[in-house]
Amino acid sequence: MIEKVSVGSEDIELVPQLTLDCVIFGFHDNVLKILLLKWKGTDLWSLPGGVIRQNESLDEAAIRVLKERTGMDKIFLRQFYTFGKVQRYDTNDIQKQLAHVIDPKLWYQRAISIGYYALVDYEEVFPNPDHLSDECAWWDLSDVPQLLFDHGEILEKALHALRLELSFQPIGLNLLPEKFTMPDMMRMYEAILGKKIDPRNFQKKILNSGIVVKLKEVKKGVAHKSPFLYKFEEKRYKEVLKEGGLFFI
Amino acid sequence: MIEKVSVGSEDIELVPQLTLDCVIFGFHDNVLKILLLKWKGTDLWSLPGGVIRQNESLDEAAIRVLKERTGMDKIFLRQFYTFGKVQRYDTNDIQKQLAHVIDPKLWYQRAISIGYYALVDYEEVFPNPDHLSDECAWWDLSDVPQLLFDHGEILEKALHALRLELSFQPIGLNLLPEKFTMPDMMRMYEAILGKKIDPRNFQKKILNSGIVVKLKEVKKGVAHKSPFLYKFEEKRYKEVLKEGGLFFI
Repeated sequence: MIEKVSVGSEDIELVPQLTLDCVIFGFHDNVLKILLLKWKGTDLWSLPGGVIRQNESLDEAAIRVLKERTGMDKIFLRQFYTFGKVQRYDTNDIQKQLAHVIDPKLWYQRAISIGYYALVDYEEVFPNPDHLSDECAWWDLSDVPQLLFDHGEILEKALHALRLELSFQPIGLNLLPEKFTMPDMMRMYEAILGKKIDPRNFQKKILNSGIVVKLKEVKKGVAHKSPFLYKFEEKRYKEVLKEGGLFFI
Repeated sequence: MIEKVSVGSEDIELVPQLTLDCVIFGFHDNVLKILLLKWKGTDLWSLPGGVIRQNESLDEAAIRVLKERTGMDKIFLRQFYTFGKVQRYDTNDIQKQLAHVIDPKLWYQRAISIGYYALVDYEEVFPNPDHLSDECAWWDLSDVPQLLFDHGEILEKALHALRLELSFQPIGLNLLPEKFTMPDMMRMYEAILGKKIDPRNFQKKILNSGIVVKLKEVKKGVAHKSPFLYKFEEKRYKEVLKEGGLFFI
Protein backbone atom coordinates (compact mmCIF):
# COMPACT_ATOMS: atom_id res chain seq x y z
CA MET A 1 0.00 0.00 0.00
CA ILE A 2 1.08 3.53 -0.74
CA GLU A 3 1.20 5.50 2.49
CA LYS A 4 2.07 8.91 1.13
CA VAL A 5 1.51 10.82 -2.07
CA SER A 6 3.31 13.91 -3.27
CA VAL A 7 1.18 16.83 -4.40
CA GLY A 8 3.46 19.55 -5.69
CA SER A 9 6.27 19.74 -3.12
CA GLU A 10 4.07 18.45 -0.31
CA ASP A 11 3.92 14.92 1.04
CA ILE A 12 0.37 13.96 1.95
CA GLU A 13 -0.32 11.13 4.35
CA LEU A 14 -2.97 8.60 3.45
CA VAL A 15 -5.28 6.43 5.49
CA PRO A 16 -3.61 3.02 5.10
CA GLN A 17 -5.44 0.15 3.40
CA LEU A 18 -8.43 2.29 2.53
CA THR A 19 -9.48 3.39 -0.96
CA LEU A 20 -12.61 4.51 -2.71
CA ASP A 21 -14.23 3.58 -6.01
CA CYS A 22 -16.74 5.66 -7.94
CA VAL A 23 -19.48 4.49 -10.26
CA ILE A 24 -20.28 7.59 -12.30
CA PHE A 25 -23.61 7.36 -14.11
CA GLY A 26 -24.67 9.55 -17.00
CA PHE A 27 -27.70 9.37 -19.28
CA HIS A 28 -27.52 10.15 -22.98
CA ASP A 29 -29.46 9.14 -26.11
CA ASN A 30 -31.82 7.05 -23.98
CA VAL A 31 -28.95 5.00 -22.62
CA LEU A 32 -27.48 4.73 -19.13
CA LYS A 33 -23.70 5.17 -19.27
CA ILE A 34 -20.80 4.83 -16.88
CA LEU A 35 -17.38 6.42 -16.90
CA LEU A 36 -14.41 4.02 -17.05
CA LEU A 37 -10.61 4.27 -17.11
CA LYS A 38 -8.29 2.31 -19.41
CA TRP A 39 -5.04 1.40 -17.67
CA LYS A 40 -1.81 2.59 -19.32
CA GLY A 41 -0.50 0.36 -22.08
CA THR A 42 -3.34 -2.16 -21.64
CA ASP A 43 -6.84 -2.86 -22.87
CA LEU A 44 -8.00 -3.26 -19.30
CA TRP A 45 -10.71 -1.07 -17.79
CA SER A 46 -11.71 -0.20 -14.26
CA LEU A 47 -13.84 2.24 -12.31
CA PRO A 48 -12.23 5.54 -11.33
CA GLY A 49 -11.06 5.58 -7.74
CA GLY A 50 -8.50 6.91 -5.37
CA VAL A 51 -6.93 7.11 -1.96
CA ILE A 52 -8.17 8.74 1.24
CA ARG A 53 -5.96 11.47 2.66
CA GLN A 54 -5.60 11.69 6.43
CA ASN A 55 -6.89 15.25 6.37
CA GLU A 56 -10.04 14.70 4.33
CA SER A 57 -13.36 12.99 5.03
CA LEU A 58 -14.55 10.09 2.88
CA ASP A 59 -17.02 12.40 1.12
CA GLU A 60 -14.31 14.98 0.47
CA ALA A 61 -12.08 12.28 -1.03
CA ALA A 62 -14.90 11.19 -3.33
CA ILE A 63 -15.61 14.77 -4.39
CA ARG A 64 -11.91 15.25 -5.17
CA VAL A 65 -11.75 12.10 -7.31
CA LEU A 66 -14.94 13.01 -9.15
CA LYS A 67 -13.71 16.50 -9.87
CA GLU A 68 -10.41 15.11 -11.19
CA ARG A 69 -12.18 12.69 -13.55
CA THR A 70 -15.12 14.81 -14.72
CA GLY A 71 -14.11 18.45 -14.22
CA MET A 72 -17.31 18.92 -12.25
CA ASP A 73 -17.65 20.53 -8.86
CA LYS A 74 -21.23 19.91 -7.92
CA ILE A 75 -22.14 16.29 -8.28
CA PHE A 76 -24.89 14.21 -6.75
CA LEU A 77 -22.96 11.66 -4.75
CA ARG A 78 -24.00 8.74 -2.56
CA GLN A 79 -21.94 6.34 -0.52
CA PHE A 80 -23.58 2.96 -1.04
CA TYR A 81 -21.39 0.13 0.33
CA THR A 82 -17.95 -0.68 1.69
CA PHE A 83 -16.17 -3.62 0.10
CA GLY A 84 -14.15 -5.50 2.69
CA LYS A 85 -13.48 -9.13 1.83
CA VAL A 86 -10.01 -10.33 2.85
CA GLN A 87 -9.27 -11.20 -0.78
CA ARG A 88 -11.36 -9.00 -2.98
CA TYR A 89 -9.68 -10.24 -6.16
CA ASP A 90 -6.77 -12.31 -7.43
CA THR A 91 -3.74 -10.20 -6.49
CA ASN A 92 -1.26 -12.37 -8.44
CA ASP A 93 -3.17 -11.80 -11.60
CA ILE A 94 -3.31 -8.05 -11.07
CA GLN A 95 0.38 -7.87 -10.15
CA LYS A 96 1.25 -9.41 -13.50
CA GLN A 97 -1.20 -7.43 -15.62
CA LEU A 98 -0.31 -4.06 -14.15
CA ALA A 99 3.39 -4.55 -13.28
CA HIS A 100 4.41 -1.88 -15.80
CA VAL A 101 2.19 0.72 -14.10
CA ILE A 102 2.30 -0.16 -10.39
CA ASP A 103 5.21 -1.71 -8.49
CA PRO A 104 3.98 -5.27 -7.71
CA LYS A 105 5.37 -4.93 -4.16
CA LEU A 106 2.69 -2.37 -3.37
CA TRP A 107 -0.07 -5.01 -3.44
CA TYR A 108 1.14 -6.81 -0.31
CA GLN A 109 -1.76 -5.68 1.88
CA ARG A 110 -5.50 -5.90 1.47
CA ALA A 111 -7.39 -2.71 0.72
CA ILE A 112 -10.93 -1.95 1.85
CA SER A 113 -12.84 0.19 -0.60
CA ILE A 114 -15.69 2.61 0.00
CA GLY A 115 -18.15 2.57 -2.91
CA TYR A 116 -19.73 5.81 -4.10
CA TYR A 117 -22.07 6.33 -6.98
CA ALA A 118 -22.48 9.67 -8.71
CA LEU A 119 -25.09 11.04 -11.09
CA VAL A 120 -23.94 13.61 -13.59
CA ASP A 121 -25.38 15.57 -16.46
CA TYR A 122 -23.63 13.81 -19.33
CA GLU A 123 -23.33 16.97 -21.41
CA GLU A 124 -21.32 18.77 -18.75
CA VAL A 125 -18.61 16.18 -18.20
CA PHE A 126 -15.10 16.39 -19.59
CA PRO A 127 -13.64 12.90 -19.00
CA ASN A 128 -10.06 13.08 -17.81
CA PRO A 129 -7.72 10.07 -17.30
CA ASP A 130 -5.61 9.81 -14.13
CA HIS A 131 -1.83 9.22 -13.94
CA LEU A 132 -2.31 5.44 -14.22
CA SER A 133 -4.59 5.49 -17.24
CA ASP A 134 -4.50 6.31 -20.95
CA GLU A 135 -8.15 7.03 -21.41
CA CYS A 136 -11.28 8.02 -19.51
CA ALA A 137 -14.44 7.27 -21.47
CA TRP A 138 -18.19 6.72 -21.28
CA TRP A 139 -19.45 3.19 -21.86
CA ASP A 140 -23.02 2.13 -22.45
CA LEU A 141 -24.06 0.10 -19.45
CA SER A 142 -25.04 -2.79 -21.73
CA ASP A 143 -21.56 -2.91 -23.35
CA VAL A 144 -19.35 -2.59 -20.27
CA PRO A 145 -16.27 -4.84 -20.69
CA GLN A 146 -15.05 -7.17 -17.95
CA LEU A 147 -13.63 -4.86 -15.28
CA LEU A 148 -10.40 -5.17 -13.31
CA PHE A 149 -10.29 -6.00 -9.59
CA ASP A 150 -13.79 -6.58 -8.11
CA HIS A 151 -15.17 -3.64 -10.01
CA GLY A 152 -17.78 -5.75 -11.77
CA GLU A 153 -19.27 -6.53 -8.37
CA ILE A 154 -19.02 -2.89 -7.28
CA LEU A 155 -20.89 -1.80 -10.42
CA GLU A 156 -23.63 -4.40 -9.78
CA LYS A 157 -24.09 -3.20 -6.22
CA ALA A 158 -24.17 0.46 -7.31
CA LEU A 159 -26.90 -0.32 -9.84
CA HIS A 160 -28.87 -2.12 -7.18
CA ALA A 161 -28.54 0.88 -4.84
CA LEU A 162 -29.55 3.25 -7.63
CA ARG A 163 -32.68 1.19 -8.34
CA LEU A 164 -33.68 1.11 -4.67
CA GLU A 165 -33.13 4.82 -4.29
CA LEU A 166 -35.03 5.80 -7.42
CA SER A 167 -38.06 6.40 -5.23
CA PHE A 168 -36.26 8.34 -2.51
CA GLN A 169 -33.47 10.34 -4.17
CA PRO A 170 -33.74 13.04 -6.85
CA ILE A 171 -32.26 10.78 -9.52
CA GLY A 172 -34.08 12.43 -12.42
CA LEU A 173 -32.99 15.89 -11.37
CA ASN A 174 -29.37 14.81 -11.57
CA LEU A 175 -29.36 12.61 -14.66
CA LEU A 176 -31.66 14.52 -16.99
CA PRO A 177 -30.88 17.88 -18.57
CA GLU A 178 -32.78 20.87 -17.20
CA LYS A 179 -35.53 20.51 -19.81
CA PHE A 180 -36.68 17.12 -20.99
CA THR A 181 -39.61 15.40 -22.64
CA MET A 182 -41.88 12.83 -21.02
CA PRO A 183 -40.35 10.05 -23.19
CA ASP A 184 -36.82 11.17 -22.09
CA MET A 185 -37.84 10.76 -18.48
CA MET A 186 -39.49 7.42 -19.07
CA ARG A 187 -36.44 6.09 -20.94
CA MET A 188 -34.28 7.07 -17.98
CA TYR A 189 -36.46 5.03 -15.62
CA GLU A 190 -36.45 2.14 -18.09
CA ALA A 191 -32.65 2.27 -18.41
CA ILE A 192 -32.15 2.18 -14.65
CA LEU A 193 -34.78 -0.45 -13.95
CA GLY A 194 -33.80 -2.53 -16.97
CA LYS A 195 -37.43 -3.04 -17.96
CA LYS A 196 -40.17 -1.57 -20.11
CA ILE A 197 -42.72 0.81 -18.61
CA ASP A 198 -46.24 1.43 -19.84
CA PRO A 199 -46.04 4.99 -21.28
CA ARG A 200 -49.64 6.10 -20.68
CA ASN A 201 -49.60 4.92 -17.10
CA PHE A 202 -46.21 6.51 -16.53
CA GLN A 203 -47.26 9.89 -17.88
CA LYS A 204 -50.48 9.87 -15.86
CA LYS A 205 -48.69 9.05 -12.62
CA ILE A 206 -45.91 11.56 -13.13
CA LEU A 207 -48.36 14.33 -13.96
CA ASN A 208 -50.60 13.46 -11.01
CA SER A 209 -47.64 13.54 -8.65
CA GLY A 210 -46.96 17.16 -9.55
CA ILE A 211 -43.18 16.69 -9.67
CA VAL A 212 -42.81 18.18 -13.16
CA VAL A 213 -44.22 21.26 -14.84
CA LYS A 214 -45.01 21.44 -18.53
CA LEU A 215 -43.26 24.25 -20.41
CA LYS A 216 -44.57 26.13 -23.40
CA GLU A 217 -41.61 25.00 -25.50
CA VAL A 218 -41.44 21.85 -27.59
CA LYS A 219 -38.36 19.79 -28.36
CA LYS A 220 -37.06 20.61 -31.80
CA GLY A 221 -35.32 18.48 -34.37
CA VAL A 222 -37.17 15.27 -33.59
CA ALA A 223 -39.18 13.23 -36.05
CA HIS A 224 -42.99 12.97 -35.72
CA LYS A 225 -44.88 15.50 -33.64
CA SER A 226 -42.59 17.69 -31.52
CA PRO A 227 -43.06 16.67 -27.89
CA PHE A 228 -43.48 19.22 -25.11
CA LEU A 229 -40.63 19.94 -22.72
CA TYR A 230 -40.95 19.63 -18.96
CA LYS A 231 -38.82 20.61 -16.01
CA PHE A 232 -38.80 19.48 -12.41
CA GLU A 233 -40.79 21.32 -9.76
CA GLU A 234 -37.93 20.81 -7.31
CA LYS A 235 -39.73 21.53 -4.06
CA ARG A 236 -42.63 19.19 -4.87
CA TYR A 237 -40.25 16.53 -6.25
CA LYS A 238 -38.33 16.46 -2.98
CA GLU A 239 -41.53 16.35 -0.91
CA VAL A 240 -42.84 13.40 -2.92
CA LEU A 241 -39.51 11.57 -2.57
CA LYS A 242 -39.52 12.15 1.17
CA GLU A 243 -42.80 10.27 1.39
CA GLY A 244 -41.45 7.50 -0.85
CA GLY A 245 -44.20 8.58 -3.19
CA LEU A 246 -42.55 7.61 -6.48
CA PHE A 247 -42.54 4.00 -5.59
CA PHE A 248 -45.34 3.28 -8.03
CA ILE A 249 -43.14 3.45 -11.10
CA MET B 1 -4.91 3.23 17.47
CA ILE B 2 -4.37 -0.30 18.67
CA GLU B 3 -2.60 -2.25 15.95
CA LYS B 4 -2.57 -5.69 17.55
CA VAL B 5 -4.74 -7.60 20.00
CA SER B 6 -3.84 -10.72 21.96
CA VAL B 7 -6.27 -13.63 21.80
CA GLY B 8 -4.98 -16.36 24.10
CA SER B 9 -1.26 -16.54 23.36
CA GLU B 10 -1.66 -15.26 19.82
CA ASP B 11 -1.08 -11.71 18.57
CA ILE B 12 -3.62 -10.73 15.96
CA GLU B 13 -2.94 -7.90 13.55
CA LEU B 14 -5.64 -5.35 12.94
CA VAL B 15 -6.56 -3.16 10.00
CA PRO B 16 -5.33 0.24 11.20
CA GLN B 17 -7.75 3.13 11.71
CA LEU B 18 -10.77 1.00 10.89
CA THR B 19 -13.48 -0.09 13.35
CA LEU B 20 -17.09 -1.20 13.23
CA ASP B 21 -20.16 -0.26 15.21
CA CYS B 22 -23.33 -2.32 15.56
CA VAL B 23 -26.85 -1.14 16.13
CA ILE B 24 -28.63 -4.22 17.47
CA PHE B 25 -32.39 -3.97 17.30
CA GLY B 26 -34.82 -6.14 19.22
CA PHE B 27 -38.60 -5.95 19.60
CA HIS B 28 -40.36 -6.70 22.87
CA ASP B 29 -43.63 -5.69 24.54
CA ASN B 30 -44.55 -3.60 21.49
CA VAL B 31 -41.36 -1.56 21.82
CA LEU B 32 -38.29 -1.31 19.59
CA LYS B 33 -35.15 -1.77 21.66
CA ILE B 34 -31.42 -1.45 21.11
CA LEU B 35 -28.51 -3.05 22.89
CA LEU B 36 -26.04 -0.65 24.55
CA LEU B 37 -22.84 -0.93 26.57
CA LYS B 38 -22.02 1.01 29.75
CA TRP B 39 -18.35 1.91 29.93
CA LYS B 40 -16.44 0.73 33.01
CA GLY B 41 -16.74 2.95 36.05
CA THR B 42 -18.93 5.48 34.22
CA ASP B 43 -22.54 6.19 33.47
CA LEU B 44 -21.68 6.60 29.80
CA TRP B 45 -23.23 4.42 27.12
CA SER B 46 -22.26 3.53 23.57
CA LEU B 47 -23.09 1.09 20.80
CA PRO B 48 -21.23 -2.22 20.79
CA GLY B 49 -18.36 -2.27 18.33
CA GLY B 50 -14.94 -3.60 17.63
CA VAL B 51 -11.83 -3.82 15.54
CA ILE B 52 -11.25 -5.45 12.14
CA ARG B 53 -8.64 -8.20 12.07
CA GLN B 54 -6.38 -8.43 9.04
CA ASN B 55 -7.54 -11.98 8.41
CA GLU B 56 -11.30 -11.41 8.51
CA SER B 57 -13.76 -9.69 6.20
CA LEU B 58 -15.87 -6.79 7.43
CA ASP B 59 -18.90 -9.08 7.66
CA GLU B 60 -16.94 -11.67 9.63
CA ALA B 61 -15.79 -8.97 12.04
CA ALA B 62 -19.40 -7.85 12.56
CA ILE B 63 -20.58 -11.45 13.10
CA ARG B 64 -17.81 -11.94 15.69
CA VAL B 65 -18.76 -8.78 17.60
CA LEU B 66 -22.46 -9.67 17.53
CA LYS B 67 -21.79 -13.17 18.79
CA GLU B 68 -19.65 -11.81 21.61
CA ARG B 69 -22.37 -9.37 22.72
CA THR B 70 -25.51 -11.47 22.20
CA GLY B 71 -24.40 -15.10 22.31
CA MET B 72 -26.11 -15.57 18.95
CA ASP B 73 -24.65 -17.18 15.87
CA LYS B 74 -27.23 -16.54 13.22
CA ILE B 75 -28.16 -12.92 13.06
CA PHE B 76 -29.72 -10.84 10.32
CA LEU B 77 -27.02 -8.30 9.61
CA ARG B 78 -26.76 -5.39 7.19
CA GLN B 79 -23.91 -3.00 6.52
CA PHE B 80 -25.57 0.40 6.12
CA TYR B 81 -22.98 3.20 6.09
CA THR B 82 -19.32 4.01 6.70
CA PHE B 83 -18.62 6.95 8.99
CA GLY B 84 -15.54 8.80 7.84
CA LYS B 85 -15.40 12.43 8.90
CA VAL B 86 -11.90 13.61 9.83
CA GLN B 87 -13.13 14.48 13.31
CA ARG B 88 -16.08 12.28 14.09
CA TYR B 89 -16.29 13.52 17.71
CA ASP B 90 -14.45 15.58 20.29
CA THR B 91 -11.39 13.47 21.05
CA ASN B 92 -10.26 15.63 24.00
CA ASP B 93 -13.55 15.07 25.72
CA ILE B 94 -13.40 11.33 25.18
CA GLN B 95 -9.78 11.13 26.30
CA LYS B 96 -10.76 12.68 29.64
CA GLN B 97 -13.94 10.72 30.19
CA LEU B 98 -12.44 7.33 29.39
CA ALA B 99 -8.82 7.81 30.54
CA HIS B 100 -9.26 5.15 33.24
CA VAL B 101 -10.30 2.56 30.63
CA ILE B 102 -8.27 3.42 27.50
CA ASP B 103 -4.80 4.96 27.39
CA PRO B 104 -5.43 8.52 26.07
CA LYS B 105 -2.40 8.16 23.77
CA LEU B 106 -4.30 5.60 21.72
CA TRP B 107 -6.67 8.26 20.34
CA TYR B 108 -3.99 10.02 18.31
CA GLN B 109 -5.37 8.93 14.92
CA ARG B 110 -8.76 9.17 13.34
CA ALA B 111 -10.80 5.99 12.99
CA ILE B 112 -13.23 5.24 10.19
CA SER B 113 -16.15 3.10 11.31
CA ILE B 114 -18.30 0.70 9.31
CA GLY B 115 -21.90 0.75 10.55
CA TYR B 116 -23.92 -2.47 10.73
CA TYR B 117 -27.40 -2.99 11.98
CA ALA B 118 -28.66 -6.30 13.26
CA LEU B 119 -32.14 -7.65 13.94
CA VAL B 120 -32.47 -10.22 16.68
CA ASP B 121 -35.18 -12.17 18.38
CA TYR B 122 -35.17 -10.40 21.75
CA GLU B 123 -36.00 -13.56 23.69
CA GLU B 124 -32.92 -15.38 22.46
CA VAL B 125 -30.30 -12.80 23.37
CA PHE B 126 -28.00 -13.03 26.39
CA PRO B 127 -26.44 -9.55 26.62
CA ASN B 128 -22.76 -9.73 27.46
CA PRO B 129 -20.48 -6.74 28.23
CA ASP B 130 -17.04 -6.50 26.61
CA HIS B 131 -13.71 -5.93 28.41
CA LEU B 132 -14.23 -2.15 28.40
CA SER B 133 -17.75 -2.16 29.80
CA ASP B 134 -19.61 -2.99 33.02
CA GLU B 135 -22.96 -3.68 31.52
CA CYS B 136 -24.66 -4.67 28.28
CA ALA B 137 -28.38 -3.90 28.33
CA TRP B 138 -31.48 -3.34 26.24
CA TRP B 139 -32.82 0.21 26.07
CA ASP B 140 -36.19 1.28 24.73
CA LEU B 141 -35.51 3.32 21.62
CA SER B 142 -37.52 6.21 23.07
CA ASP B 143 -35.39 6.31 26.27
CA VAL B 144 -31.89 5.98 24.76
CA PRO B 145 -29.47 8.22 26.72
CA GLN B 146 -27.00 10.53 25.00
CA LEU B 147 -24.42 8.21 23.45
CA LEU B 148 -20.63 8.51 23.43
CA PHE B 149 -18.58 9.32 20.31
CA ASP B 150 -20.81 9.92 17.22
CA HIS B 151 -23.01 6.97 18.15
CA GLY B 152 -26.14 9.11 18.30
CA GLU B 153 -25.65 9.89 14.63
CA ILE B 154 -24.89 6.24 13.82
CA LEU B 155 -28.12 5.17 15.54
CA GLU B 156 -30.13 7.78 13.58
CA LYS B 157 -28.67 6.57 10.30
CA ALA B 158 -29.33 2.92 11.17
CA LEU B 159 -32.96 3.71 11.93
CA HIS B 160 -33.26 5.51 8.63
CA ALA B 161 -31.79 2.51 6.79
CA LEU B 162 -34.10 0.15 8.67
CA ARG B 163 -37.14 2.23 7.65
CA LEU B 164 -36.09 2.30 4.01
CA GLU B 165 -35.47 -1.42 3.96
CA LEU B 166 -38.72 -2.36 5.67
CA SER B 167 -40.20 -2.98 2.22
CA PHE B 168 -37.24 -4.94 0.82
CA GLN B 169 -35.74 -6.95 3.69
CA PRO B 170 -37.38 -9.62 5.85
CA ILE B 171 -37.47 -7.35 8.89
CA GLY B 172 -40.54 -8.99 10.43
CA LEU B 173 -39.08 -12.47 10.12
CA ASN B 174 -36.08 -11.38 12.15
CA LEU B 175 -37.66 -9.18 14.79
CA LEU B 176 -40.85 -11.08 15.60
CA PRO B 177 -41.04 -14.42 17.37
CA GLU B 178 -41.99 -17.42 15.22
CA LYS B 179 -45.68 -17.03 16.04
CA PHE B 180 -47.24 -13.62 16.45
CA THR B 181 -50.60 -11.87 16.36
CA MET B 182 -51.67 -9.29 13.80
CA PRO B 183 -51.45 -6.51 16.43
CA ASP B 184 -47.88 -7.67 17.30
CA MET B 185 -46.88 -7.27 13.68
CA MET B 186 -48.58 -3.92 13.34
CA ARG B 187 -46.91 -2.60 16.51
CA MET B 188 -43.55 -3.61 15.08
CA TYR B 189 -44.18 -1.56 11.95
CA GLU B 190 -45.42 1.34 14.06
CA ALA B 191 -42.35 1.18 16.31
CA ILE B 192 -39.96 1.27 13.34
CA LEU B 193 -41.82 3.91 11.37
CA GLY B 194 -42.53 5.98 14.47
CA LYS B 195 -46.15 6.53 13.47
CA LYS B 196 -49.62 5.06 13.90
CA ILE B 197 -51.04 2.70 11.30
CA ASP B 198 -54.72 2.12 10.54
CA PRO B 199 -55.31 -1.43 11.87
CA ARG B 200 -58.10 -2.49 9.47
CA ASN B 201 -56.19 -1.34 6.44
CA PHE B 202 -53.01 -2.97 7.70
CA GLN B 203 -54.65 -6.33 8.33
CA LYS B 204 -56.36 -6.30 4.93
CA LYS B 205 -53.15 -5.51 3.08
CA ILE B 206 -51.03 -8.04 4.94
CA LEU B 207 -53.60 -10.79 4.40
CA ASN B 208 -53.97 -9.92 0.70
CA SER B 209 -50.20 -10.03 0.21
CA GLY B 210 -50.14 -13.65 1.36
CA ILE B 211 -46.95 -13.20 3.39
CA VAL B 212 -48.45 -14.68 6.58
CA VAL B 213 -50.55 -17.73 7.28
CA LYS B 214 -53.15 -17.90 10.05
CA LEU B 215 -52.63 -20.71 12.56
CA LYS B 216 -55.33 -22.55 14.45
CA GLU B 217 -53.88 -21.43 17.78
CA VAL B 218 -54.77 -18.27 19.65
CA LYS B 219 -52.51 -16.21 21.88
CA LYS B 220 -53.20 -17.02 25.53
CA GLY B 221 -53.01 -14.87 28.61
CA VAL B 222 -54.17 -11.67 27.00
CA ALA B 223 -57.12 -9.58 28.06
CA HIS B 224 -60.20 -9.30 25.83
CA LYS B 225 -60.75 -11.80 23.08
CA SER B 226 -57.76 -14.05 22.43
CA PRO B 227 -56.25 -13.07 19.07
CA PHE B 228 -55.21 -15.64 16.48
CA LEU B 229 -51.56 -16.41 15.89
CA TYR B 230 -49.86 -16.12 12.50
CA LYS B 231 -46.55 -17.14 11.09
CA PHE B 232 -44.64 -16.02 8.01
CA GLU B 233 -45.00 -17.85 4.71
CA GLU B 234 -41.28 -17.37 4.08
CA LYS B 235 -41.15 -18.10 0.38
CA ARG B 236 -44.03 -15.76 -0.43
CA TYR B 237 -42.69 -13.09 1.99
CA LYS B 238 -39.36 -13.04 0.16
CA GLU B 239 -41.03 -12.93 -3.26
CA VAL B 240 -43.14 -9.96 -2.22
CA LEU B 241 -40.09 -8.17 -0.80
CA LYS B 242 -38.17 -8.75 -4.00
CA GLU B 243 -40.84 -6.86 -5.89
CA GLY B 244 -40.81 -4.09 -3.27
CA GLY B 245 -44.39 -5.12 -2.67
CA LEU B 246 -44.70 -4.15 0.98
CA PHE B 247 -44.22 -0.53 0.24
CA PHE B 248 -47.86 0.18 0.87
CA ILE B 249 -47.56 0.03 4.63
